[in-house]
Amino acid sequence: MEEFVSREQQVVEEEPEANGHHSSTQSSHRLLNYSDALISIIATVMILPVAHTKVEDNEELRQSVQTLLTTKIAVYLMTFLIVTVAWAAHIRLFQVIVRIDDCLALLNLACMMLITFLPYTFSLMATFPENILGILLFCGCVMVIGVIQSIIVLYAFSHPYLLNQQIQSLESRSFYKSHILKVIMRVPLVCFFASVTSLIFFQLSYVLLAIVIFLPYITRCLKWCRSKAIGPVEESPEVELFYSFLPNEPLSKERVEAFSDGVYAIVATLLILDICEDNVPDPTLVKQHFGGSLVAALKAYGPEYLAYFGSFATVGLLWFAHHSLFLHVTRTTRFMGLLNTFSLAFVGGLPLAYQLTHEFPPNSRNELEAIQISCVIIFFAGIFQLAIFVVALYRQQETLHPYVRYNGQEHIFMLAKLALYPCVALVTFFLTCILSRFSASIFHLMEITVPFAFILLRLLVRLLLSILRYIFCPERISLQRILEEDIEDLNAINTANT
Amino acid sequence: MEEFVSREQQVVEEEPEANGHHSSTQSSHRLLNYSDALISIIATVMILPVAHTKVEDNEELRQSVQTLLTTKIAVYLMTFLIVTVAWAAHIRLFQVIVRIDDCLALLNLACMMLITFLPYTFSLMATFPENILGILLFCGCVMVIGVIQSIIVLYAFSHPYLLNQQIQSLESRSFYKSHILKVIMRVPLVCFFASVTSLIFFQLSYVLLAIVIFLPYITRCLKWCRSKAIGPVEESPEVELFYSFLPNEPLSKERVEAFSDGVYAIVATLLILDICEDNVPDPTLVKQHFGGSLVAALKAYGPEYLAYFGSFATVGLLWFAHHSLFLHVTRTTRFMGLLNTFSLAFVGGLPLAYQLTHEFPPNSRNELEAIQISCVIIFFAGIFQLAIFVVALYRQQETLHPYVRYNGQEHIFMLAKLALYPCVALVTFFLTCILSRFSASIFHLMEITVPFAFILLRLLVRLLLSILRYIFCPERISLQRILEEDIEDLNAINTANT
Repeated sequence: MEEFVSREQQVVEEEPEANGHHSSTQSSHRLLNYSDALISIIATVMILPVAHTKVEDNEELRQSVQTLLTTKIAVYLMTFLIVTVAWAAHIRLFQVIVRIDDCLALLNLACMMLITFLPYTFSLMATFPENILGILLFCGCVMVIGVIQSIIVLYAFSHPYLLNQQIQSLESRSFYKSHILKVIMRVPLVCFFASVTSLIFFQLSYVLLAIVIFLPYITRCLKWCRSKAIGPVEESPEVELFYSFLPNEPLSKERVEAFSDGVYAIVATLLILDICEDNVPDPTLVKQHFGGSLVAALKAYGPEYLAYFGSFATVGLLWFAHHSLFLHVTRTTRFMGLLNTFSLAFVGGLPLAYQLTHEFPPNSRNELEAIQISCVIIFFAGIFQLAIFVVALYRQQETLHPYVRYNGQEHIFMLAKLALYPCVALVTFFLTCILSRFSASIFHLMEITVPFAFILLRLLVRLLLSILRYIFCPERISLQRILEEDIEDLNAINTANT
Repeated sequence: MEEFVSREQQVVEEEPEANGHHSSTQSSHRLLNYSDALISIIATVMILPVAHTKVEDNEELRQSVQTLLTTKIAVYLMTFLIVTVAWAAHIRLFQVIVRIDDCLALLNLACMMLITFLPYTFSLMATFPENILGILLFCGCVMVIGVIQSIIVLYAFSHPYLLNQQIQSLESRSFYKSHILKVIMRVPLVCFFASVTSLIFFQLSYVLLAIVIFLPYITRCLKWCRSKAIGPVEESPEVELFYSFLPNEPLSKERVEAFSDGVYAIVATLLILDICEDNVPDPTLVKQHFGGSLVAALKAYGPEYLAYFGSFATVGLLWFAHHSLFLHVTRTTRFMGLLNTFSLAFVGGLPLAYQLTHEFPPNSRNELEAIQISCVIIFFAGIFQLAIFVVALYRQQETLHPYVRYNGQEHIFMLAKLALYPCVALVTFFLTCILSRFSASIFHLMEITVPFAFILLRLLVRLLLSILRYIFCPERISLQRILEEDIEDLNAINTANT
């Protein structure tokens, strides 16, 4: 299977001239990049309506969250889930089709247009849960997307030079085609039933829509039950390769990275958008209230700049940890992709969390809760990244670079990099619980120290290991030598920086 | 030089294990992708404050544009310019440094944080042109960015395995280092002078800031004058390679594509953001005004959906033309990058244009002008794309794939693809001038027909060529044969679609 992935890579990187079939056939690389950018933006920006919900000062945050934000947060999470499901289907499709032509590019654009419209149908559903219009619109979009994807598959199979090399050489190509079409049409079919039942009994259609998201898992489960009851069903191994929905089904690593980059980039810049729009004071206001002193007027926004830099640094460093991890991942599986999606969903919540931290008066109960929510979000964003690494370690021969496997020279360091944010978030959370009066100071201190912790991480890890070694087996290694080593490291870093 | 580019490509694509120097050294590929995503988002989103400016119905659009929008549009264009200048500097830097380690990644993130903060300083400058705070903040940011970039250069030159292979093997490496540092520190120095002069005479500091943007061109011009006056100055050809600011200085094609993808993706999704936030009606409002009928309530938003789909289709098809062009571009130069930036700046204005088209009552003067502005924006976005192709044709041996060179089998087709939008926009503009009463219908008709024109472009071009050939040399080719050919094409397309 690994051999196959590298072959696919090769095909993607070929120049147009390498293909003798048709002058207009193209590598799909850039089309996929553009699709990833579109999908990652759409998945993430639904946090904006949540963040723009004004929470009143005199209300309790807990209550206002319950009454005001629940719907919007639900829309955000639903959008994120459904869009990533659509994205996974898109990856699967373009792992089979590795070259495109103009016709496929235009069909894909039409598909993207409908995917970007999905969040709006969700907003309608969330605002008018008892009105079937939202359901009908959503189902309509999904059905059209399904039809377009089927056309793409039919078109690609009628021009075999567009397909993956392995499938091109497959004997049972038409069988494989019908298998893919079956898998693709399952979702529009369920949506068709949902739209029909919505006319009769709309609650049932919501259940059907929930089934859409978990469809792969349900069918996998049913197959497993059947194989236990009747005995294993024979399937050709090639068919199992791409549309199998097994946890270790390959998922293009390049696209997981591109999608993650898009999400991190959008999230990092969301706050500066708000700052540029809202935090430029009105000239007349500055004259009236601050005697024309712009500095005095801007001082009122102080916490928001801090929130911006804090949010940017956190997102940037989470991206850095993600980047370090995927640099040493050699192959991505479906399950790792799922964990990555969960991590990204929490990363998407960060602008909201940071915006909340500066919206309340200092030392209020609301501020404390906003800071604790931030800690929880950072914790989960980090812990799911760590989970990707742990899952990868289970099949480390296939999925990881030797450096970061057990006993690899970078293993401990990678673990420390990924564990830093969850640990810091957890410690901050408990500290704010105990020392609730200093919660804001603790949180800001955390923001400032974490970047330095990343810079000095190599040193800190070495120091910690040495101390542990010294405590548990003090006879084998002298403290003197450890300190000498550390001083050498410090010197190396100093010379590097100057 | 082409040999060199391919070698650089090779280095970028190497796996981490290929480098024996240090286990933590990494390919810079993903870092650059993330930076491109961040910079493209920041460059584009400043159109949002422009688009969110409410234009009153009873005012004349021309006047309100002049009074309300000029500042914001100026901020958008200035941000776009300065951010793309920073981006070009970033490309130049990371064409020299082709591998990174953790320290460089973190320094780059710090640099990105400051770049994303620049738009805010512009907003301050535009709102308070006579207050020096905006200038000081901007100059401060630029100076810190300059310092960070210098640290990056010093760090990379002290770890030569991070550098480009060609520079690694260079004899005069320290000379090259000081050359790069000189170029990098020029901008912060001008900014330092600007901030000093702002304390004395702030108008002069704006002039100095304008110089920053055109600095490369000014120095190039000065050098040219000096060489004419005194005679050519001897410079080693290697130094000229990356920091030469010649129009044909190489510019990483991969990064130009990534940046363009980011801009197109953000622009395509900007309108759905607004729709999701603003066009979900309030449930109580629907009950009061529309008798609980959601369909009736949403009908009021009809034109906005049309604007969304129109804007998405236009941006998508402009991306498609861009994608087709760059697929056949083998090498990007600085001048082509500049034209691409101009094209993208107009693409960034599209959401504004489309939002304007549905904001005014039908058949008003404002609506007509909004539609004409849209046509102008589409025309310039398209014409600059065409200009890239024309410029590339001047050095077609170096920059273009044989297929699209003069007399190449795809040359005419590529020209048609790139000329389609400018031509359609021009025709629509003049039609709306003549038939001003039907301007909205003409514009919507254009939106609907253009995608089909792209699908049938190959056929249309063949048809047009045949007609031209028939008119100018009717004896050489019979109409019968042309029609037969066209029918064959049509059949091929039909069988492909079914």
